[in-house]
Amino acid sequence: MAKTLVECPLNFSDGQHKDVITAIVQAAHRPGVHILDVTSDIDHNRSVITLIGEPEPLQESVFAIVGRAAELIDLRQHRGTHPRIGAVDVIPFVPVQAASMAQCVEMARQTGERIGRELQIPVFLYEEAASAPHRRNLADIRRGEFEGLAVKMQDPLWQPDFGPASPHPSAGAVVIGARTYLVAYNVYLGTRDLRIGKAIARAIRGRDGGLANVKALGMFIKERDMVQISMNLVDPLRTPIYRVVETIRMEAARYGVPIVESELIGLLPLETLLETARYYLQLPNLHADSIIEMRVAELAAESQG
Amino acid sequence: MAKTLVECPLNFSDGQHKDVITAIVQAAHRPGVHILDVTSDIDHNRSVITLIGEPEPLQESVFAIVGRAAELIDLRQHRGTHPRIGAVDVIPFVPVQAASMAQCVEMARQTGERIGRELQIPVFLYEEAASAPHRRNLADIRRGEFEGLAVKMQDPLWQPDFGPASPHPSAGAVVIGARTYLVAYNVYLGTRDLRIGKAIARAIRGRDGGLANVKALGMFIKERDMVQISMNLVDPLRTPIYRVVETIRMEAARYGVPIVESELIGLLPLETLLETARYYLQLPNLHADSIIEMRVAELAAESQG
Repeated sequence: MAKTLVECPLNFSDGQHKDVITAIVQAAHRPGVHILDVTSDIDHNRSVITLIGEPEPLQESVFAIVGRAAELIDLRQHRGTHPRIGAVDVIPFVPVQAASMAQCVEMARQTGERIGRELQIPVFLYEEAASAPHRRNLADIRRGEFEGLAVKMQDPLWQPDFGPASPHPSAGAVVIGARTYLVAYNVYLGTRDLRIGKAIARAIRGRDGGLANVKALGMFIKERDMVQISMNLVDPLRTPIYRVVETIRMEAARYGVPIVESELIGLLPLETLLETARYYLQLPNLHADSIIEMRVAELAAESQG
Repeated sequence: MAKTLVECPLNFSDGQHKDVITAIVQAAHRPGVHILDVTSDIDHNRSVITLIGEPEPLQESVFAIVGRAAELIDLRQHRGTHPRIGAVDVIPFVPVQAASMAQCVEMARQTGERIGRELQIPVFLYEEAASAPHRRNLADIRRGEFEGLAVKMQDPLWQPDFGPASPHPSAGAVVIGARTYLVAYNVYLGTRDLRIGKAIARAIRGRDGGLANVKALGMFIKERDMVQISMNLVDPLRTPIYRVVETIRMEAARYGVPIVESELIGLLPLETLLETARYYLQLPNLHADSIIEMRVAELAAESQG
């Protein structure tokens, strides 16, 4: 049996001070939790620390990070191009291995409750953990940012799910929730005509009549001298990558434009790769257990007991 | 850094006596070696035990199995439909993770030398470890079987690489070597016409002018009421699965026949799956490190030190 693993790409509001970032990352360390990646952006003045681990220690690490960030980050002094309402701004729990969405929702509730109670920071639940439909979308919760939060929270629609009824003076509020894995995926087209890129982006994205769970923008990439369809695939298990790529191919064909190359930003769950091979090779009986390296990893995990 | 892992699907000559099979499998157990699979065939009177592990303990397990099998199996009493020359008949070492072919050749030589010296069983090196071109092919070494071995070994061309110059009285000889991973892969076609299946099998296999490293037969599968192209892909890293499937599709098109389904027998190395996705998605920057589950497995392995 594979261990239950949950991923957490936590966003906090410092991308400029190395000592602060290091201290916050330090708070995540504990057995059973792995730090997959830390990426800081100076212009955004924001960092993403990607944790992965078993539910209990992962929740401990997240709580420790929120506590440390509240000590070290003062949003009254914070400037950056990316919208934010909190010192720790967003905490998504993402089911990865043998974990269910329900379990991740429960983790968000438990950790949120503890942050509200012990750290006295207001907490908003979002996405699959949202307590009302208007609170599902992160952008809606964050609209007005830290600077507008005290006024926004006077609206009965924007009472926090946990914690005090007004913002923490320096740490603002925390948004915490559960969502499926998101794949950032770009497709380069054999054209320099941005109008074609924009038309294909419209055709492919769910909002404008294309595929559900696909967010897409057409942009011109100078470095490559080509048009790119830049996408977030927000539910790659229900709207698989092959369907997105083949639909782009189909739409691009009406302009006589070929796909030149695809590009993956970050990581993919194995299942998305398996589904790709199942489709193209017409190989329905392909599973994680069919992959030697997965069998080895599983056996190695078993043998340590 | 990933651990070095070598796979060894070892074939021994008993598929009928549970106590014998269990005792031989038992000899494989040691830290650093995992038993992926044991499959016994009663008609063949033969079993395959698939081990995977780090080179040193894996060589120890293999040596222990050969010793135990020589004690428990007497080929003078052995009847079965599958050709064989030894109690342990064939030992392939297959590079899997961070292992090179050169390393597997060296493992075959070392283990073979020890079997010859300590167990007094003659040893033939084959495939990548072969000491001469005429000794590369397993079928050539095995021709004449156990019953013809004493006469065959009088030929200077068939002196063993290690051990005594004549067969072990009850255990015969051992064939040991190194080869790439072999994928057993079948493609079902939307036709009941076996002539079409045979023509496509000829078109696809290297021997008759098709793709290198592909062995293919056309056969009619009653259960599915369809023709199947049954294949061994003997070097799936150099002749990738997508090329085989798309060439079958291309050849089948001349008969107006579609591919209905593919079928994988056994396991695949992750790299073959990555190469499939790289081709179809045109995604050159896809690597094992792009897969969440592989990153987790690597981190877990590191954290145990």
